[in-house]
Amino acid sequence: MTIGESKDFSHLYSDETKARKPSPLKTCIHLFQDPNIIFLGGGLPMSDYFPWDRVQADSPLPPFNKGIGAPVSGEADDTLRLALRKNEITKAGETQDIPLSRALQYGFSQGQPELLSFVREHTAMIHPMQYSDWDVLASVGNTNSWESTLRIFCNRGDTILAEAYSFSSSIYAAEAQGINVFPVPLDEFGIIPEKLEKILDNWNPEAAKPKLLYTIPTGQNPTGSTLSDDRKAEIYRIAQKHDFIIIEDEPYYFLQMDPYVKDPAKRAEKTVSSHEDFIKSLAKSFISLDTEGRVLRLDSFSKVLAPGVRLGWIVGSKKILTDYLRLHEMTIQCPSGFTQSLVAGTLNRWGQDGYLDWLIGLRHEYNEKRNVTMDALYKYLPQVPFIKVSPPSAGMFFTINIDASAHPEFATKYQSKPELVEQAIYDKVIEHGVLIVPGVWFKANGDTQPPQPAESKVDVAPNEIFFRGTYAAVPLDKLQAGLKRVGEALYDEFAVTRE
Amino acid sequence: MTIGESKDFSHLYSDETKARKPSPLKTCIHLFQDPNIIFLGGGLPMSDYFPWDRVQADSPLPPFNKGIGAPVSGEADDTLRLALRKNEITKAGETQDIPLSRALQYGFSQGQPELLSFVREHTAMIHPMQYSDWDVLASVGNTNSWESTLRIFCNRGDTILAEAYSFSSSIYAAEAQGINVFPVPLDEFGIIPEKLEKILDNWNPEAAKPKLLYTIPTGQNPTGSTLSDDRKAEIYRIAQKHDFIIIEDEPYYFLQMDPYVKDPAKRAEKTVSSHEDFIKSLAKSFISLDTEGRVLRLDSFSKVLAPGVRLGWIVGSKKILTDYLRLHEMTIQCPSGFTQSLVAGTLNRWGQDGYLDWLIGLRHEYNEKRNVTMDALYKYLPQVPFIKVSPPSAGMFFTINIDASAHPEFATKYQSKPELVEQAIYDKVIEHGVLIVPGVWFKANGDTQPPQPAESKVDVAPNEIFFRGTYAAVPLDKLQAGLKRVGEALYDEFAVTRE
Repeated sequence: MTIGESKDFSHLYSDETKARKPSPLKTCIHLFQDPNIIFLGGGLPMSDYFPWDRVQADSPLPPFNKGIGAPVSGEADDTLRLALRKNEITKAGETQDIPLSRALQYGFSQGQPELLSFVREHTAMIHPMQYSDWDVLASVGNTNSWESTLRIFCNRGDTILAEAYSFSSSIYAAEAQGINVFPVPLDEFGIIPEKLEKILDNWNPEAAKPKLLYTIPTGQNPTGSTLSDDRKAEIYRIAQKHDFIIIEDEPYYFLQMDPYVKDPAKRAEKTVSSHEDFIKSLAKSFISLDTEGRVLRLDSFSKVLAPGVRLGWIVGSKKILTDYLRLHEMTIQCPSGFTQSLVAGTLNRWGQDGYLDWLIGLRHEYNEKRNVTMDALYKYLPQVPFIKVSPPSAGMFFTINIDASAHPEFATKYQSKPELVEQAIYDKVIEHGVLIVPGVWFKANGDTQPPQPAESKVDVAPNEIFFRGTYAAVPLDKLQAGLKRVGEALYDEFAVTRE
Repeated sequence: MTIGESKDFSHLYSDETKARKPSPLKTCIHLFQDPNIIFLGGGLPMSDYFPWDRVQADSPLPPFNKGIGAPVSGEADDTLRLALRKNEITKAGETQDIPLSRALQYGFSQGQPELLSFVREHTAMIHPMQYSDWDVLASVGNTNSWESTLRIFCNRGDTILAEAYSFSSSIYAAEAQGINVFPVPLDEFGIIPEKLEKILDNWNPEAAKPKLLYTIPTGQNPTGSTLSDDRKAEIYRIAQKHDFIIIEDEPYYFLQMDPYVKDPAKRAEKTVSSHEDFIKSLAKSFISLDTEGRVLRLDSFSKVLAPGVRLGWIVGSKKILTDYLRLHEMTIQCPSGFTQSLVAGTLNRWGQDGYLDWLIGLRHEYNEKRNVTMDALYKYLPQVPFIKVSPPSAGMFFTINIDASAHPEFATKYQSKPELVEQAIYDKVIEHGVLIVPGVWFKANGDTQPPQPAESKVDVAPNEIFFRGTYAAVPLDKLQAGLKRVGEALYDEFAVTRE
């Protein structure tokens, strides 16, 4: 099957993007490589004066048989020792490294070639692409990628769509820029396509249509929900119908897990073992449905390697990425050279197969964390109909959903206001020595006028509140102890009698 | 002498900064450190799953007796070996390191404490501060710091002041945001205070005053000029009078050199040797004149260590830096953890004295490069009154200033248009195998209405053009060869007879 080229979406650009000129210095940069030209053009310090001659890093060796968290000895049987030189000499057939003299110099705003080639190959393996002129661009993580996205597309006064509960920093970044964040109803399977379509079909014809849909499809923050493949296809169709761009922010994509099995005896030890099975088990991405270049995928190493590497990448059409690149030249320039050379050096030595081994190992760890969490929630939380939990299938988060009206003092002490019950539970849980986060902190409070058809109402159950917790951050014993405390706080607050 | 607190400058903030809300998650982050609380609040991956257990880097040892560019052997007598562990255990009295488990985790958006403490101490040593509540904030370099500055202060339609020729990326970043860049006349000693004052005194009372002055005081890009201490005091007074913020963008600050001495026999081998002499030799900064918190200093390791570390810092009042921090939480989060731990580890081992040794070594290298450049320019350029060079005292750049009207075909072939002569010279120089950059590429073309008094005219000599070259990027032999080619191209283009 031959696939076509991406479409042009520059009609959706911000005034800023339309006005941004490339630096005239870029017009002569090709002469930098010309052996006949002595290049006295750019203010580049000589790499002779970079003070690091050699950088070395130890990581575990694929296939990580002892688990991805096992410490390494520093010996050759379990340790990969990466050694980078300032002036690397790579022999034919050897793993390609980024020499420090290049990694620590200006240039390569798109990212260093050795990193990009790994990321491209990985992307093609996980997300079979449906148009030809796609590419990747390095970023310093999805926070940066999302902020760049807002600058690329949105003017003050524009409206974007987002899940009704979403990552608060992402929402606040948009709001500070004067962008209205219109909340889209979601349930435990993510955005509800029918509701989204009705909102847009009923959009006030005098108001500008939303330019973007911001979504965290996998292991959504804060709800922990994962958007089904069917819904994605529906949403993509709606995006085409109403001409908006889909931004899939996917930091948790590789934290997908096996379905939760309540009976420990019936749990398979490892449901995914081969690389093929693993790739097959993953949710279909928006980018892999995209035939037009209408989707931008924000990917990151933060949750799969380490947040402090500050390294992510954007997948999208070359046309649009060119404009991100121009923006980056005036913002971050490029990710840290230490980061790029250490991450690329490690990944190129692990290889695509080794990286899949790592991701499978990670899945295994998160499976266990999720299982321990659900087991503990079922064990320690009051078994009452007004407190609900549902096992997440991806991500770092679980939610505890509560019908606030079931509180014995709902109408009296709390004046029938669910948000006051929410605050009281938050305080009570802290009193019991554990911290989980109230759902209201994640609410997209954007103006829902112009349209606001009745169907777009977010709160199907207006007294339902929820709390977000994470199983990612602490070891298993602490996790169990923490969830026990949450249970005790709820028994206490709701005056539930223990059986 | 007791010094006071900074003033509040929030009346100069952009709408975006005024609207930016801190994430509610920050309200509970203090509980993360509480030993009685099990923190299930934040989506932090466990450091057990960070794949790097040990990172090591070799750098030269102070006082760098063989020169800062000398390669290191890896042996203890000339090599500092920095080894960082995932879970560092620092004994009392040992150099403080940032353990990888922390450097590679979320958090510390201001920068890691071990890095900030070094930078603060360094700043206090070089720039005696005149108010009490100053601080530093890490950035990913001055490109990022400048872009953040524009977002913090400016709305679409605002005006800022900048040197009439300035770093094109900085100007373009402002222009893309819809900000008018008003050019301020400068000569070989930088901005001319009298002209600046007249511009502002005559400012159209119906137009909003400029909020910022953007300046590169030391080794200005592209002119190579350095602003004198006296002029700085004058400009600071004007900033107070007309209530604008001064942004000093100082990547080249430590590339200050000895005055150029034309006769090689009379050159001292090392005019600066003690640390005291060195600090005394440095230009007074705007930040060290500032009693109010009206100056923000953008500092960077790009030109003194390596650009690819992507690490800089902003010096300013805590009040303003708090707002930069909130912006950073939605953009870069923080610089790379690898970068922070390697730079802080190296600098904390070198110590403040070792770092001064490094900077003195760098001065020595740039002295030599500048001397070779000037010697070559005097030797190879046509000795005619219409071609002028003046020895820079700082930075990476030299300029060749030319009276275009002296071109034999000025009135005929070039229709008395200096910009056509400029383009012809640029092409001719490339033909001769060298690249230098036309001054017009750096021209701030902002709207000079409203005021535009006659005194603000930039081009005192309307037919003067110039080219920017750098002596930073190439070794000395290549530099000489390149400058010889420039000379030949000018002999050729201007049909000057060789003596």
